[in-house]
Amino acid sequence: MYGIFSYDIASPRVGFKHRDHILDLEVVGLLGYFSELNLDPAVFARPTLNDFMKLGKPTWQAVNHRIKDLLSNENVAFEGVHDQVLIRESRAMMHLPVRIGDYTDFYAGIHHAENVGRMFRPDGEPLLPNYKQMPVAYHGRASSIVVSGTPIRRPQGQFMQGGKLTFGPSQALDFELELGLIIGKESRLGQPVSIADAEDYVFGLVLFNDWSARDIQRWEYQPLGPFLGKNFGSSMSAWVVPFEDLHPFRVESPRQEPALLPYLQSSPTEGTISNHFDLTLEVLLNDVVISQTNARYLYWSFAQMIAHHTVNGCNLNVGDVLASGTISGTEPGSYGSLLELSWNGERPLVLPGETAEPEGRKRTFLQDGDTVTMRGISIKHGHTLKFGEVTGTIQPSAQ
Amino acid sequence: MYGIFSYDIASPRVGFKHRDHILDLEVVGLLGYFSELNLDPAVFARPTLNDFMKLGKPTWQAVNHRIKDLLSNENVAFEGVHDQVLIRESRAMMHLPVRIGDYTDFYAGIHHAENVGRMFRPDGEPLLPNYKQMPVAYHGRASSIVVSGTPIRRPQGQFMQGGKLTFGPSQALDFELELGLIIGKESRLGQPVSIADAEDYVFGLVLFNDWSARDIQRWEYQPLGPFLGKNFGSSMSAWVVPFEDLHPFRVESPRQEPALLPYLQSSPTEGTISNHFDLTLEVLLNDVVISQTNARYLYWSFAQMIAHHTVNGCNLNVGDVLASGTISGTEPGSYGSLLELSWNGERPLVLPGETAEPEGRKRTFLQDGDTVTMRGISIKHGHTLKFGEVTGTIQPSAQ
Repeated sequence: MYGIFSYDIASPRVGFKHRDHILDLEVVGLLGYFSELNLDPAVFARPTLNDFMKLGKPTWQAVNHRIKDLLSNENVAFEGVHDQVLIRESRAMMHLPVRIGDYTDFYAGIHHAENVGRMFRPDGEPLLPNYKQMPVAYHGRASSIVVSGTPIRRPQGQFMQGGKLTFGPSQALDFELELGLIIGKESRLGQPVSIADAEDYVFGLVLFNDWSARDIQRWEYQPLGPFLGKNFGSSMSAWVVPFEDLHPFRVESPRQEPALLPYLQSSPTEGTISNHFDLTLEVLLNDVVISQTNARYLYWSFAQMIAHHTVNGCNLNVGDVLASGTISGTEPGSYGSLLELSWNGERPLVLPGETAEPEGRKRTFLQDGDTVTMRGISIKHGHTLKFGEVTGTIQPSAQ
Repeated sequence: MYGIFSYDIASPRVGFKHRDHILDLEVVGLLGYFSELNLDPAVFARPTLNDFMKLGKPTWQAVNHRIKDLLSNENVAFEGVHDQVLIRESRAMMHLPVRIGDYTDFYAGIHHAENVGRMFRPDGEPLLPNYKQMPVAYHGRASSIVVSGTPIRRPQGQFMQGGKLTFGPSQALDFELELGLIIGKESRLGQPVSIADAEDYVFGLVLFNDWSARDIQRWEYQPLGPFLGKNFGSSMSAWVVPFEDLHPFRVESPRQEPALLPYLQSSPTEGTISNHFDLTLEVLLNDVVISQTNARYLYWSFAQMIAHHTVNGCNLNVGDVLASGTISGTEPGSYGSLLELSWNGERPLVLPGETAEPEGRKRTFLQDGDTVTMRGISIKHGHTLKFGEVTGTIQPSAQ
């Protein structure tokens, strides 16, 4: 996994996580280990991954393979320079890994969308008519995306409380468990990206927490969508998993009915479409696991999200972030938000190990001081894929 | 007005428009005319205004005053260097003036919001309950904002036609007349900007055309707001009017009822709040004026937009764009979109001077080859304020 780290007097630079150490890729390059790749090591002495990503997919892949070769147990020669190139992770400070262009948030988690529909439109169909025809999405705020570990200040805002317009700290602060795609290739304005080419635009994946203030969101979101209920902060993991590392975790995509418009149809490989990924994800609230779910519960594939986003000619830039939307499974223990886990506050979560005080034991939404951590570890066919965690602690509102 | 221009072998750089010439601010600086301001002329040799904006409001004002002094008729000495510093505008190519961070689109034109409400929710109140409590807004797409003159390709997408899901070129392509604020000062994540300080964050204003595909928008926008119906392109004028030049055009803000929450209340100066601006704006379709309106029709002030945007702690960056939303007056001839001017296609516009063919004479939405131009010229108390125009021509969809 790639990230941006600094340590001692070393300014922010590109690193590759290796167990509890970080490989300093600039130093690896200066020692000549990338010389066959015709790569200037200076691209790793930058405070974001953007310049590295701009070198293109063949270079990402060559570097990824070279690094794995260098770090393999058989590479005894490289062990001789370990003390020059490996920095203990505990000495490092992590930074936001990309300079983000635009941030888009999809709504591709169908069980989440159904749950929200059931809560907010109890008399209608859980899903709106467009849901199974397109990966619904909206634009989010890039400026307030922060790296894992950054505290999140509880937002203030307007909301309705007991039928009365109120201003104050949100009383319904929530998390949303999502995956984020980091776009590594530019597309041209006016030129759609076909679904066959779409995955080539993805450099890698992060874990993503789309913090949400449900009370602010509910009052503001008609008719133009979420705004202040979301844009006070989103958190991403410091580490970006290379997209090709996901390959062993491909699974058959869900059957999609009604039939899709051609631009959203993937070509089957050996009879099946395998654009989904079997990735185990979990959420911890104050170190207690409160949800376990899987990326395969997404209705729409990453390829479909990109094909849809660009079908009208909208252009992608290196550093754009496309988040999946909240990933919820079918059972209550697999929901990706407190809104769903507490069923809009009606069924408070009881956290084990807390004090016997009734307020302390239960959670509907987040309290000041709560820490939310998201993790992802998957093992399949002998391959292990581990995301960098994304964590954040709630600070009280500004006074 | 400031903009980014290039000519002959001169790479993109900061210029100031003076009648039909452009003042090359780097050359002015190299000749020593900014030496009292302690300003490195290199800040004007950049391809965007961002670095100049980062110098802060006192510097913007000092440069603005110095330029006006140099260009005044009385400054005979400066006339001697005119041939070194003034470039004929017809020789120059204009570029997008800012490197845009985030783009937010408000919905502050109340007559537009009422018209849309009447068309789309004929059985309900034209305005939703939140409209008069907050400047409603949503996040837009920064990557597809282009400079005036850039052709706009008709987007393709999904929409409902006669009750049937269809894919193809939009059949309801529209413009939206807006003003865009260029943010010139950074705010800190977690720190609201008070309404008293809000205008200090505005470097200047542009004319802004938020092109919209109404059929795509209508099918997609529930529940999360506009996405592909908007993000295929937005156009801004090449020239940015310094915010302080708007001062003579201040007018009393409209009375706002019901009462606002304190964070949206401006302090009155001499009994009135004058955070609105009397700016005449017009739209031309193929050189025919089809709408004349005024910025004073906005319900919410720029200061209120900024105070609302940041009240939850959302941070602003230098180069962010905040657009006003469509500005419509009270009469049909003052509406800022074809959706309203043709009342959702029910009352086609008849354009004079076109051929007698029925299809040629009428417009409900935009046809391929149509050119939309927006202008703004205001005269008040002996002051003239002229925006740079924003224009764009519709190209057929990609095949």
